[in-house]
Amino acid sequence: MKFLAEINVMPQKEILDPQGKAVRIGLQNLDIHQVADVRIGKHIQLQIEANSEAEANEIVTNACKKLLANLIMEEFDFVLKAI
Amino acid sequence: MKFLAEINVMPQKEILDPQGKAVRIGLQNLDIHQVADVRIGKHIQLQIEANSEAEANEIVTNACKKLLANLIMEEFDFVLKAI
Repeated sequence: MKFLAEINVMPQKEILDPQGKAVRIGLQNLDIHQVADVRIGKHIQLQIEANSEAEANEIVTNACKKLLANLIMEEFDFVLKAI
Repeated sequence: MKFLAEINVMPQKEILDPQGKAVRIGLQNLDIHQVADVRIGKHIQLQIEANSEAEANEIVTNACKKLLANLIMEEFDFVLKAI
């Protein structure tokens, strides 16, 4: 079975997000002033070959913990769907 | 009213994704072989002050077109919710 995982890896809430601050200033320079806060992370799409949704879930969690997310500074969540 | 926009900015499908290729090799080196394809982009969260959902939608679309996405090589989509 094929699965598609849509993963978001974001800086943890307590951690300062300088990239987000820079983008907010950039938006203000473009006269877009209604943006109160900006947070920027990674969106990762994985195509997985697995025998079940539970196995696919385990593969994605393992990939996030081992490589895709730096758990000291980042947090991750994902949605999984059969394709 | 306050809105939260969850934006995904991804490389267009036809465009080669070297970052994705590198991560796939990295996963294989970690004995995670069930990953057929990897695509990597940005996940951006914007907190918006707007009078209506339609106005918030316009602000986010404008921000994406002007700054957050490079429309030559990237495509974007987003979900908007009142907070």
